[in-house]
Amino acid sequence: MKDDILYHFNLGTSTHDLQAMFGDVKFVCVGGSPWRMKSFTEYIAKELGLADPNAEYPNICEGTDRYAMYKVGPLLSVSHGMGIPSISIMLHELIKLLYHARCTDVTIVRIGTSGGIGLKPGTVVVTKQSVDAMFKPRLEQIILGKPVVRSTELDGKLAEDLLKCGDDLGEFETVIGNTMCTLDFYEGQARLDGAFCSYTEEDKQSYLAEAYAAGVRNIEMESSVFAAMCKLSNLRAAVVCVTLLDRQKGDQLTSSHDVLNNYQQRPQMLVKHYIKKKLNASKKS
Amino acid sequence: MKDDILYHFNLGTSTHDLQAMFGDVKFVCVGGSPWRMKSFTEYIAKELGLADPNAEYPNICEGTDRYAMYKVGPLLSVSHGMGIPSISIMLHELIKLLYHARCTDVTIVRIGTSGGIGLKPGTVVVTKQSVDAMFKPRLEQIILGKPVVRSTELDGKLAEDLLKCGDDLGEFETVIGNTMCTLDFYEGQARLDGAFCSYTEEDKQSYLAEAYAAGVRNIEMESSVFAAMCKLSNLRAAVVCVTLLDRQKGDQLTSSHDVLNNYQQRPQMLVKHYIKKKLNASKKS
Repeated sequence: MKDDILYHFNLGTSTHDLQAMFGDVKFVCVGGSPWRMKSFTEYIAKELGLADPNAEYPNICEGTDRYAMYKVGPLLSVSHGMGIPSISIMLHELIKLLYHARCTDVTIVRIGTSGGIGLKPGTVVVTKQSVDAMFKPRLEQIILGKPVVRSTELDGKLAEDLLKCGDDLGEFETVIGNTMCTLDFYEGQARLDGAFCSYTEEDKQSYLAEAYAAGVRNIEMESSVFAAMCKLSNLRAAVVCVTLLDRQKGDQLTSSHDVLNNYQQRPQMLVKHYIKKKLNASKKS
Repeated sequence: MKDDILYHFNLGTSTHDLQAMFGDVKFVCVGGSPWRMKSFTEYIAKELGLADPNAEYPNICEGTDRYAMYKVGPLLSVSHGMGIPSISIMLHELIKLLYHARCTDVTIVRIGTSGGIGLKPGTVVVTKQSVDAMFKPRLEQIILGKPVVRSTELDGKLAEDLLKCGDDLGEFETVIGNTMCTLDFYEGQARLDGAFCSYTEEDKQSYLAEAYAAGVRNIEMESSVFAAMCKLSNLRAAVVCVTLLDRQKGDQLTSSHDVLNNYQQRPQMLVKHYIKKKLNASKKS
């Protein structure tokens, strides 16, 4: 291809010098909410002393409202919206961006929120395997009208390192477990409070108990395609999500705004600690 | 349920008087982009003389960046992000909102963008049937780990009425046809310009030709679950999308910003005309 337009980022190879803009990227963090990815950028800048804490971080994807993107030092922070299709568009364009910018040795982490199973709300789950709604570590995609199954394997060493960061911090519980990735937030996650529901509380509890027995500790909506696409691109990838509630005890998010906000900062703290350790180690070597 | 928290709208039955806020809603328009749904609201206000054209329309979902929502007179305008999971979360909460607000006789239209097949870019497609990647008018969802198949039937009379509005306006081509709804923008739509591609230009062309033969005139990423959920809720529903390019001739969006912007206004113009006719008819009766 002569030119490549990264349409949903409002960037392109003929309009932007992607290597100059992104060539030094070593860490990419992605998350659903544009606001959260902006505040994560400011937090990292402050915590790692990477830039003037009063600096403004402009949205690199200005001119589109599909995604938001921020950069500070070697960190790129990108929003991906909700669900597999939304994050998959972003990842196609991000992987092409990293390729055009000739980035090397990149680590990518999804930081997000999730529903927990059998965990105290606020627990951070580092994903061991991303599994589908039948608890299998796979993603089925339809390509040219035919099903293609891809592995959702993540980097085991990176997951262990991130778990260790949780222990280092000691400020909240961090566990490793399987993450179930669904296409729907209500019926797809056995919630009883959607616009429709064709099953009982008992059916719900029995499905969640099966999931727990299969090693599932939390449920979200992006990890499987994230894992599959990063694996195909040889990107070192991890998923770190906080649980906002225990799904065995309810479906609605009744905690206060402040409590939920505090929970949402935990994956950020953990990843900040990881990046700090890596940057210190590379300074020493 | 005593209280109902519409989490992704930042609204709830115990914190908001939903009937007072939304009881008069008769038309709901939904689309991917929050900016577009805001500008649609301003456009409708101006064109229908429903409010002071200089009035500000605040985002009713302020306090969250998941969705944006605006209201003017009987019109509610809501963004839904990209892909089936993202619009499905929004629709669960919207359907509950309309129920809590005791709205009656509501018409809902998705206005969006799409890739066309065998059509001049800028053509508006009113969806006859929303079909999956195998060209079947169905949506398969996974509920409690088991597949459930739902019909994606839309309101035939509403589609005909909207087609007629395109003829009334006479400013652009409007056709009726099947719309293919996919879970992915790149490989799922046979694009050759994603981060990965395991097929040839010939494979792509043959898949698009099959789709055309099955009556598919455009491809997008939300119509199937929109149709299925509206049907389950007895909401009169239609999908009106403009085609931004002819996929048989390319994959990338190379048209200028101004041209694409002009195209994106066409579904808005068509729906504005429909609402105007309906409001005039109800005044007369």
